[in-house]
This record gives sequence, structure tokens and C-alpha cells, in this order.
Amino acid sequence: MDHFEPVGFQNVDITGGFWAAKQKLNRDVTIYAVRDRFADTGRFQAFECNWKEGSDEPKPHFFWDSDIAKWIESASYIIAQHPDPELEKNIEDVIDCIEKNQCADGYFNIYHQVVEPELRFRDRDHHELYCLGHLIEAAVAYYNATGRDRFLNILDKYIDLVILVFTVEKSAGFATPGHEEIELALIKLYRLKKDRKYLDLAMFFLNERGVNPEMNMEWCKGMYHQSHLPVREQRTAEGHSVRACYLYSGMADAAKETGDEALFAACRDLFRDITERKMYISGGVGSSNKGEAFTVPYDLPNDTAYAETCAAIALSFFADRMKEIDPDAKYADVVEREMYNGVLSGLSLDGRSFFYENPLEINLSDHTRHVSVNDHDRLPITQRLEVFGCSCCPPNVTRYIASLGGSVFSLKDERICVHQFMELNASVNGAEISMETNYPNDGNIRLTVAGAKGKKLCVRVPGWCTEFTFSRPYTMDRGYAVIDVTEDAFTLKIEFVMKPQFFAASPAVRADAGKAAMQYGPVVYCLESVDNGGELFDLTVDTAGAPEIVYDPDFGVKTFTFPATRTDKERFSSLYQLAKPVAAVPAMAKFIPYFAFANRGEADMTVWFRYR
Amino acid sequence: MDHFEPVGFQNVDITGGFWAAKQKLNRDVTIYAVRDRFADTGRFQAFECNWKEGSDEPKPHFFWDSDIAKWIESASYIIAQHPDPELEKNIEDVIDCIEKNQCADGYFNIYHQVVEPELRFRDRDHHELYCLGHLIEAAVAYYNATGRDRFLNILDKYIDLVILVFTVEKSAGFATPGHEEIELALIKLYRLKKDRKYLDLAMFFLNERGVNPEMNMEWCKGMYHQSHLPVREQRTAEGHSVRACYLYSGMADAAKETGDEALFAACRDLFRDITERKMYISGGVGSSNKGEAFTVPYDLPNDTAYAETCAAIALSFFADRMKEIDPDAKYADVVEREMYNGVLSGLSLDGRSFFYENPLEINLSDHTRHVSVNDHDRLPITQRLEVFGCSCCPPNVTRYIASLGGSVFSLKDERICVHQFMELNASVNGAEISMETNYPNDGNIRLTVAGAKGKKLCVRVPGWCTEFTFSRPYTMDRGYAVIDVTEDAFTLKIEFVMKPQFFAASPAVRADAGKAAMQYGPVVYCLESVDNGGELFDLTVDTAGAPEIVYDPDFGVKTFTFPATRTDKERFSSLYQLAKPVAAVPAMAKFIPYFAFANRGEADMTVWFRYR
Repeated sequence: MDHFEPVGFQNVDITGGFWAAKQKLNRDVTIYAVRDRFADTGRFQAFECNWKEGSDEPKPHFFWDSDIAKWIESASYIIAQHPDPELEKNIEDVIDCIEKNQCADGYFNIYHQVVEPELRFRDRDHHELYCLGHLIEAAVAYYNATGRDRFLNILDKYIDLVILVFTVEKSAGFATPGHEEIELALIKLYRLKKDRKYLDLAMFFLNERGVNPEMNMEWCKGMYHQSHLPVREQRTAEGHSVRACYLYSGMADAAKETGDEALFAACRDLFRDITERKMYISGGVGSSNKGEAFTVPYDLPNDTAYAETCAAIALSFFADRMKEIDPDAKYADVVEREMYNGVLSGLSLDGRSFFYENPLEINLSDHTRHVSVNDHDRLPITQRLEVFGCSCCPPNVTRYIASLGGSVFSLKDERICVHQFMELNASVNGAEISMETNYPNDGNIRLTVAGAKGKKLCVRVPGWCTEFTFSRPYTMDRGYAVIDVTEDAFTLKIEFVMKPQFFAASPAVRADAGKAAMQYGPVVYCLESVDNGGELFDLTVDTAGAPEIVYDPDFGVKTFTFPATRTDKERFSSLYQLAKPVAAVPAMAKFIPYFAFANRGEADMTVWFRYR
Repeated sequence: MDHFEPVGFQNVDITGGFWAAKQKLNRDVTIYAVRDRFADTGRFQAFECNWKEGSDEPKPHFFWDSDIAKWIESASYIIAQHPDPELEKNIEDVIDCIEKNQCADGYFNIYHQVVEPELRFRDRDHHELYCLGHLIEAAVAYYNATGRDRFLNILDKYIDLVILVFTVEKSAGFATPGHEEIELALIKLYRLKKDRKYLDLAMFFLNERGVNPEMNMEWCKGMYHQSHLPVREQRTAEGHSVRACYLYSGMADAAKETGDEALFAACRDLFRDITERKMYISGGVGSSNKGEAFTVPYDLPNDTAYAETCAAIALSFFADRMKEIDPDAKYADVVEREMYNGVLSGLSLDGRSFFYENPLEINLSDHTRHVSVNDHDRLPITQRLEVFGCSCCPPNVTRYIASLGGSVFSLKDERICVHQFMELNASVNGAEISMETNYPNDGNIRLTVAGAKGKKLCVRVPGWCTEFTFSRPYTMDRGYAVIDVTEDAFTLKIEFVMKPQFFAASPAVRADAGKAAMQYGPVVYCLESVDNGGELFDLTVDTAGAPEIVYDPDFGVKTFTFPATRTDKERFSSLYQLAKPVAAVPAMAKFIPYFAFANRGEADMTVWFRYR
């Protein structure tokens, strides 16, 4: 197991290009839009803890603490780089409420304090520890942004109560959280405060998991919340995909902090099981809405894909952690896949609306195949919404985008690793690094490094890239080009040759059999009926054809229009006809980035298509 | 509208080949197997009408009368050609019960007399008129087989009650049956007895249908039971597919008997809507389990196909009737499609088990994709059963096979039409016809006709056939070859050139896009994993390759093994790889008849496959 340290997003100033625009939209529009929807729905008000049965106020839900916590975390990341007194005031108001309403023994939970106080720490599925985990992440982010520790101190008291109840008295109704998250949050806090009790509590929850029969084990034999085996024995990703990937992230953190090789081995196998058997090309994971869960290997239906935005984020977190302890480019490849696809598809182009589920295929006719709406099959929604009853995804997207710079660099000894590519200036352990690039619109990168003489620059060669050049000599090490920095002022020119690429899935994936998906660089593309007419399934794309390429300012990337064919309908005077000779008529297939689907009204959409 | 008369099955002796074997199995095994399962489940016992709440006997269901009625009808068809005292005794016993337990006013229904007498004629979905319809068909069949009219007389009294309650008093809780069937049964009885009251009652039910709002109209706006429009205004097939096709059969009968051109026009359009937009290549109809219903045009999913065996039978009945009033070969084409595929797949090769649903694709992994069985998607069962709670299909298959000879010939004036092909001797309105053939194993037919000098022989050229020869001159008329019979002893040699044919579906059918299905003559084929290994979806069949052809005595037809390719799995070291160059390895694709799937244990199966 290796031991790299990431360079925090605060040290990485994204100055232009694709991600600077996304971050600007995030801080100008999205953070406020999420705040306002959370206010409309009573989530902020709930922190007053004055809801009563019969009240006009909406009844708090047991995961609402986490929604606001993630919003605070997001806002904190934003104000760390772009001070905003309004956001800061919003955060302080929430902290005021928490401080005022915290129980004498340290407990705080807006649901259990006012709705079901008798169920405090009784129901494993009531998300108290999950909510605490997100509050911890929020408090750490707020401290890092402002230096103010009031929020941290409030939570320290609550954590002491959790230590007492779960590890000393063992008086709770369950031993480990039903929804994991607190494990990674506690280790984040441990890294900040260096207080061993936080790490010990995280390790307690990890070590107890799956060891003894617990509450709610009947649900999928405990697989639903990864309680079916001790964590070190888990080798396949099972159950609720967001819970799973948060757990695995915590396991990777714990492996790094403790040197636990058995945890590390489990993490490597879990990552491989996900990315080699259970991940959509978009990076989406958790293919079924039933339990929002991983299913069997290669079961990746496109039209019913659940692929929750939060699961893509959680897998990106897991991958980002894995790259620090197992320096192979495949981890940052997955982060990149999520950034441009599985996560970003969760957000509308105007920054105001969100997908919870991210299908890879939409057939609108399936939504109306029965006369009675009660008879229709359960399918993902086809347009993004501003807020959900369970609105975990929106503030997860905002924190992801705001802190994205933290995935770019990591360090160990003389090595400076460059994992992601975007226009930026960064301060990296004494060295100054700038990157000039139009990535992901082309693969030319100019990397300037000052103050790193004698170090080694380790630049990820993206997994999608089959042809590349570096202006300096390099050696390859597990997907990274390693370059000696021999001068104080050093410029490296890179070209990752970017062209439309057509990918096939493993022949074990039934949903994609005989089909291809198009990528340009890291961006996965799709076809929408708004561009291509109905019956996308009848298109056969000529992959050897020359595409028309147009930069689309709304998408921030290029679109590609390939020659294609359709079946000649004139030949089909009856429902079934001899298959040969095939009669085809010319057509076009315009590809737009997958992340931008469903931004121009309801449409059929597909990532996978027939090709020749 | 034309006016042909069918030649009844009693006059058609199937002497050898494929269908003689099926009829022998039907009378030796299937009729007894169905009888015994109906006895086990209390269906025969229920005719004693002595069930009481708290009784040990199974509680009758409101469609059980129809199950036994169809069994009697089947047994009557069998004893008409192959006397069987045991079956005759069984029938007489049931008639005894009905006679004994018939109400004084004529009413008879095993469910409503003992379970819910207060609901007599109150609930439109309680199938009383549907049950009566099947009893009428049984009584007509038994009379034709034995000349005994006791059963007919019992029902005549019941029908008089129905006439009184529905057309005079109008005192029932509904105006027309929730499950159609009685319409065609009453016209069958009218044709036997020539009593106008039966036709009038049938016309009453047809004419009242969809005219006034009725009970249970809320279900799919009345479409579920074809009550959304007056029947003459119905132009698209909607709702429960068995009910629909029984209704349409009754409408065709009524059009023929009354000369009603508006009814005829509706029938023609309904037939076209089904067969050009809503029918599987197997002849299966009703693509959804939700309401067992027709859905939108071209919505023909293969793995979730409902395609009830009874619906295939009902469509065959409808097609058989249409050929009498609109002499186009497309109708008998559909009958043939059902005979060899959509109906026959409902029966196991050993004659003992049945499918209710007939999917065109099975992926066993879909049945286990979730850890929890409660989470699994609703899919058709993968193995045939001996009896069902709703066991309408088994006795429907037995009556279909027993009376199949009735679909072969029809007559009008000097024309003798030959619609189907099998080894037989027939007595056709004074002429003697024999057919020698191995159909469907080859397309050579030797037709010998005696006593038909001066007549015209109209022989259907099957829709699948693109190349054929007749030993005599002919002219074509709507798919029939018309040949003048100039001698008293006349022999016609026909060759319908039979070879494996690959069909494509209309480009509007998403489920079949880019795929082909294989037919040999009228028989649709499929691939099973028991022959071809797993992952049938990864096979690409070389349709230009030379197949290995083997006659399989268990199937009664040939199997075809084509060269094919599979993806080279060695190339797929990761889940997604560049699609080109395509790396394929040689494979074989063994096709077995679709009707024989699921006879060798559970297996993946597909009718549609990729091809080149």
C-alpha cells in the first residue's frame, strides 16, 4: 500500500475553460437554487426544532440534517475561494440553531428531537449517524474556509455521546450505521484535529460491520447495507450503491491511516468488481431502482438504469481515495469518467435542476404503452427537477463541483502527480504549477512548473487515450508518464490525441450487445431524438465516416454528426419481411454530450447505438 | 363481403405426419392429463354444486364452468372421430350434474349458485355469460359428436332466461358481458339449430357493446373489455387480447350471418391493426401482462411478452372466420402461424404441461438479478405447468388441436379452397380429397381429388413462400392459386420451396432492431442456451452460411445449425474497449423450433438474434 497526499482544492485555482464555467455557475446559480428549494420545503426552518404534530410546517424527515449539511459543506468550499457574506450568514444561522437546540448530552437531530424522540438510536435505518457524518464534513469544510471552530466544537460533544452510547454502554438499538458515511467523515475530522478518538470511532464502526447479526438484516440478507460480511471479507460490491461507495471510501481512508493491508485488499477487489463488472460507461453505478442497488455482474440495462447521481459521486470519492494508496491511473480514470459524465448528467445546463436517476436510454413511448397510467412500467423520470422529497443529490453535486480542484494533484516524496486536466494555477507544496488547456475540447496541455527542480512529475495518461506525445522524455509507471524535472522553470507540452472513439462493452453485457458508445476524450456522447428524429434504435452509425464537428457553446464541448443509415421503411409493407437484402436509406446521427441530455425538452435518448 | 362455408373437422381425417402425431398425443395423453388436473383441483366436483363456506372442498371460481366446458368441447371433438367410452362417461356425468343442479328458471353457474348467489348477473367481471358461451360450444360439440341433445336443451332454458333478463327486463347489473365469448357461441348454436333467437341475442350483445356507459368502464376507459366504442366504430385492437379476439370472432360471424358491411369493415381493420402492428412473429398477441392486453403499435418486447396461449388461439379463430368472408391468403397465413408457433408453444412435447404466457426471449439471469426475490422483475415463467389457478389455456389447446382439420378447407359455389397442408383424407361436399405431404418438413404436396370435375381448386400459397411450382396451370387470386379441375381423377403436385428464411421486423419495432428471426416454412425457430451455451445475445449468425440440417424425432421437425461468431472475450480485459477492430471467434448457432423451447430444462432462449 502506498501513501500519497492530495493537494487540497483551496490550493488549486481553476482559472478558465470548462470547469471554471461550471464552478462559476455553481456559485452564482446552483448553490442559491438549492438553498431556496431547501428553504421552500422547510429544511432550513426544521433546524429551529419547533415542529409539532398538527403544525403547518412540513414535518422534518430523518435525512434532512444531511441535506443542509451537504449544502453547508458546498457553500463552505465556495466561500473558501470566493468570499460570499450571504452564504456565510446562512451557514452561521444554521449553526446558531444547532447550538441552541443541541441536547444537554450532545445529541442533535432535527427529526428525532421533535418527531420520534423515543426512537433516538433505536432504528438502524433512521440515518442519525449518516446525518452526523455529513454534519462533520460540513463543520470541517466550514472550519477550513473560515478558521471558526464553533461548529466543530458542537459536534465534538455529539461525537463524545456517540462514543459513549455505541462503544462503551453499547446501549443503542444497533451496532453500526444503516447508511454509512460517518466513517469517512470521522477520518476527515481525525486528519484535521489529529485526535485519535475520531479514528477509533471510525474503526469501531468498520470493524463491527457485518460481524454480528444486526437490526434489519432480513433485507437482502444484510447486503442492502453491506452488513452481510465483515468488511475485510467483502470482495463484491453489493446492495445500496451510495451506501456501499461511501463505506468503501471510509475503508480506503482507514486503510491509509492504519496501514491495514486486509482493508486495502478488500478495497482493491471491490473497486475492480464495480468498475469491471457493474459500472455503466457513464460511470453510473447501482443499476436497479430496487434497493437503489448493485445487482449481478454485467447487468447494466440502459433504459431502467438507476445510476443515482450520488452513487457516481460516491464512486468518484472512492476512486480518488484509492489513487492515494494504489497509484494506478485506473483510479483517476474513473474520477474523470464521473466528472464529465455520471456526475455531471445530474445537473441541468442552467444549473437549477437535477437528476436523481441517470438512465442511458429513454424511450418516451414506454411511458405511454398502456392506456392506464397505473399500468405503466416504473422508469426513470425524463426531465430534471429542482428538488426531490429525498433531495440528497443536489447538494452533493454542488459540493463535488466546488471542491473538484482537490482531485487534480497528489504528492509523495519527490513525486508530484497530475491526475486531471483543466486550466488552473496551483500551489503545490512549494512549487507553482499552471496548466493551460482546452481540455476536454482538445488534448493539448501546457504544464508550467516553477520551484520543482529535482522532482518527478507523474502525469496520468487517460485510459481512453491511445496516442499521445510529451515534449520531454518519460517512462511509464502504471498509467502515469514519469518525467524528471531538471530545471527550475520547466514547461511540459502534452498532446493526448483526441478524436471520436467508439467503444464496445464486454460481450457479457446483454444490454449493449452489438452496439457502440461514442466518446471524445473523456466525454461520453449520446443521441437525442430532438436532433435525430424518433426511432434512434433504427440508426446504424457509420463509424468510419467523417463527422461534422461543431463547438456548441451551450454544452461547452463539441458536437459530432456522423453519417448513418436507417432502414428503408418503404420496404416494410408488412410487419415481418425477409431480412435480406437490407434496404437502407442515408441518415445522420448527431451526438451531443451525455451530460447535456434532457436539456431541450423531453426526447428519446440513447448512449448505445448500432454501428458499422 | 364473401360467403364461404368451412368443411367441418369431422370430414377431415388427418392420417399421418406432424399433425396426426399431435392429435394422437392430444387424445392419448393431453385430454386425460387436463381432466385429471381439473379433477385434482376440484373443478369437476364443483358441478355437484354442494360447496359450502368452511367446506374442505376447494371453493369454486367464477370461471371454472368454462374450464370444464372447454374440456367437454375438446373431448367431444375427439370422440367424434375416435370413440372413447371413458371420455363420453365423463361428459355425461357433468351433464347429469348440470341437469340436476340447474335452477328452476334455467340459470346455471357453479360459482354464483353456491358462493355469491346474490351477485347473479350483478358483476360484469364475473364471467357468467362467458361461462355460458363455453357451455354452449361444448353442447354443440357434444351434439355433433353423439347426436344427443340433452345438454343443448338444458342450455336452451338458460339462454331463454338470459334473453329475458338482458333484452326484455333489462334487469341485470350490466348490459353486455365483461368477458366476450358468448357472441360467437350463440352464432354457432344458431347455425346448428337455425333458431333466430340465438342470433338475435348475439346481435343484441354486439350492438349494445360500447354504446352506453357500463359497469367497470373506469378500467382503461372501457378499453380493457372493448367497451370504449360501439363495435362498428372500433378500428384498433385494444385491451385484454383474448376477450378482444373472441369479440372480433363473434363480429366476423355476425357479419357473415347478417351481411352487415359496417361490422365487416371493422373486422378487416381490426385484423390489420393486430397483424401489421401488434403481433409477434410467433403469432403471439397481447404484449403486456398488465391487463393481458394489447398496447401501442410496434410495442413487442420479447422477454416480457405475455402472448397468452388463449390469445393466439382466439386470433386463429378470428383469422379462420375472416377467410370465409374476405378470401385473402393473409388470413389462413395467420392461422398457420398460430398452429405451428403461438398456439403450439403453449403445449409441452410430452403433452402434459402448458404455457399461459409465451415469451420470445428468456434470460434466466434476469430472474436472479436481485438478491431479494421480492425485488425481481415480473417475468413470464420459464417452464410449463400442468395446471394453473386460471387454467383457461390447457383445454383451449386440446380443443384447438382436436378440431384443427376444420381449418383446412372451405367451399363456395364451384370453388374448393385449400388453406392448410397436412397428410389427410377428406370428404368435401361430394368430392374426395387426399393430401400426401411431409409438411412442414418439406413443401412437397400431392393433392388427389376425385369427383370434382368442373370445379376450381383454390390453393393457398403460404405468405412465407417466395418460390413454388404447381403441376397444373394456375392463376393467382389474392394469394390463392386457382386451378381448374378438368378430370374426374385429378392429381396436383405442388412444391412450396422450403429453406431457412431470415425475417426482419418493421424498423418501428424497437425490440427486434438489428435482429433477424429464422423460419423454415411456417415454423419459427429459436436458439436455446442448452444447445448454444450462455449469452445467446453475443451470437452473430452467418445467414449466408450452409446449415447442418438434422431431423429431430422429438420435435417432429428439422433442426438447423448455422455458422456464427461470438466476440473474442480474450480481447475484453476491461469492461469497455474500442469497438474496432471487431475480434470474433467462430461459433455455431443451433436452431430448434420455437414451439419446442423449454422442453429440456430451464434455459436462455431467443427468437431474435443478430446476424450478418
